[in-house]
Amino acid sequence: MRYILLSFFLMTSLFSLEHKVYTLTLASSWGDQIPILGSAPYKVAKLANEMSGGRLVIKIDLPQKHKAPLGIMDLVKEGLYDIGYTTPVYYKGKDYKLVFFMTVPFGMTTTEQYAWYYHGGGKELSQKVYAPHGLRSYPGGSVGMSMGGWFKKEIKSVEDLKGLKIRISGQGGDVMARLGVNAMSTPPGELYMAMETGVLDAVEWIAPAFDMAMGFHKVAPYYYTGWSKPSGEGQYLVNKKKLDTLPEDLKVILESAIKITARELLDESNDANAKTWAQMQKEYPHIKINHFPKEIMASLKLSAKEVEEEQARKDPLYRELLESQRTYIAKIRPWSMMGEFDYLRVVTP
Amino acid sequence: MRYILLSFFLMTSLFSLEHKVYTLTLASSWGDQIPILGSAPYKVAKLANEMSGGRLVIKIDLPQKHKAPLGIMDLVKEGLYDIGYTTPVYYKGKDYKLVFFMTVPFGMTTTEQYAWYYHGGGKELSQKVYAPHGLRSYPGGSVGMSMGGWFKKEIKSVEDLKGLKIRISGQGGDVMARLGVNAMSTPPGELYMAMETGVLDAVEWIAPAFDMAMGFHKVAPYYYTGWSKPSGEGQYLVNKKKLDTLPEDLKVILESAIKITARELLDESNDANAKTWAQMQKEYPHIKINHFPKEIMASLKLSAKEVEEEQARKDPLYRELLESQRTYIAKIRPWSMMGEFDYLRVVTP
Repeated sequence: MRYILLSFFLMTSLFSLEHKVYTLTLASSWGDQIPILGSAPYKVAKLANEMSGGRLVIKIDLPQKHKAPLGIMDLVKEGLYDIGYTTPVYYKGKDYKLVFFMTVPFGMTTTEQYAWYYHGGGKELSQKVYAPHGLRSYPGGSVGMSMGGWFKKEIKSVEDLKGLKIRISGQGGDVMARLGVNAMSTPPGELYMAMETGVLDAVEWIAPAFDMAMGFHKVAPYYYTGWSKPSGEGQYLVNKKKLDTLPEDLKVILESAIKITARELLDESNDANAKTWAQMQKEYPHIKINHFPKEIMASLKLSAKEVEEEQARKDPLYRELLESQRTYIAKIRPWSMMGEFDYLRVVTP
Repeated sequence: MRYILLSFFLMTSLFSLEHKVYTLTLASSWGDQIPILGSAPYKVAKLANEMSGGRLVIKIDLPQKHKAPLGIMDLVKEGLYDIGYTTPVYYKGKDYKLVFFMTVPFGMTTTEQYAWYYHGGGKELSQKVYAPHGLRSYPGGSVGMSMGGWFKKEIKSVEDLKGLKIRISGQGGDVMARLGVNAMSTPPGELYMAMETGVLDAVEWIAPAFDMAMGFHKVAPYYYTGWSKPSGEGQYLVNKKKLDTLPEDLKVILESAIKITARELLDESNDANAKTWAQMQKEYPHIKINHFPKEIMASLKLSAKEVEEEQARKDPLYRELLESQRTYIAKIRPWSMMGEFDYLRVVTP
């Protein structure tokens, strides 16, 4: 009898241990009104729940609840949330080197950047950067190539840029500022009005699917091709202490749910951009695709190098990241060019 | 007492049900001596095992064991294996439309094809094609862009192609045959010797990392850029009846392990191609990157259309797939061109 009771007790304990539900909280930078980015964390939560048979639950809070869309990194660092869905570039004011994990002007395309991350030392550098904060960072999915932005007037020379009021985020803003641009960080909700009333002369946002929702095509006819954000990787930040409380299988399940959601975000962005661009061309035939002249591109490149050297002098780990990405681009770009680029060049009529 | 025993019995049953180990067998088309493709199914097995806490076990057999690297589809269909790791193009002799799930000449790049698969009806068409065989097919990962092959002599006109003995697989072979090429399917193990002894004049294989291992650069100096395989998607075929025996969580875990391994295969291929191309250029500076002249590309395109029309007349589902991909390319290609293509064009010195 004593033996049976003991077994019963052991069985029950094992069974409840096995069925213990782990609940993690997640704070997202983007509300569900934002296309694609808004719904991504719900996909992570659903997938993690399905794979774990209900043992892993992720509760999501949007900006309207946590009130800190640009402060996610601190929320997770301080343990107020277990996971944050955000993008490294939001924290460049505190630590400039974080931009390397999102995208940098004249940097890698999305596919190049994933090759760097998994095979060129990127993942190890990410851990080196985030470990002192008690965080693990996972690539959160790329929106792909960003456009150069919507301009009210055609830009023909570096001279034309001087004094122009442009909303441009990330490192691109610092690069343009060096050419005399008045780089502004107008809040998203005020952008359309600012463009309409002339508070802004131009706005760099993302790409067709995201841009059309903002309405910029109605107030600025020149749509410039991109140079400042050749990729656009988000991130999931996880509080390391909390991560370590998960059983091994749930850790891998969480990482896997993030990986899949991240990869599929690029498919969704590409599809949405393609669809929206076709619609834009049809409904707004006045839109002109423009390219910055060679002279401007050369100046922007030079300016980007200056921004990078300035940061590298201040922070050895920034320099390590800069060198790592520069070396990797030099290696992978020839393959990108002789592979897909050459194919697209040749087959397009 | 009776109550305690009953509870004990129920607990034990539940516990063992929870811990039942499901073992699936997998047959791979590629031995572990093949770079990248050889190791992929082991990654699926490891990930599935970790996520399931040991409840899902995948046992892998290589060609030396099952002896049917080109017959995987039948092995899984007949239930001799539960999963097959292979590529749709191997079965084009039986069913030509399967090529659409790997790649077609002048078709989509890898990123375009994923957007089509998940957002342009590709997944639904895949189920329509494979359901009658009792199979589910999952994208198995793309090796990315393939090159046009190694040629002993420079090709300057369509005339130069006539009578040339070229090893070229997939739909590309059928396309070239229409231009008078003697398209051959020499087994991989004999290719180097065939090139050296003049049995072959040219060989289309994959891309630098895979090609260098074959040694073609030692016997043919002209390396042509690609047109026939703009992507190179593999597949995991799963026996549907067997899949249905898995509990829901293990089903999602299996699909997720496949998805992650598939996506990361492209990173690995891009990295390996970049690395190998740099090495090739250094060690074999005589290698010349060549482009087929416009006249030849135009003839190849025309010939590809003929092959497609011929197949479409025979099989309505082939036509449905053809139209689906053509429509999707027309939609997504403008975005590919104004996005990443334009960026690479502008930033490359």
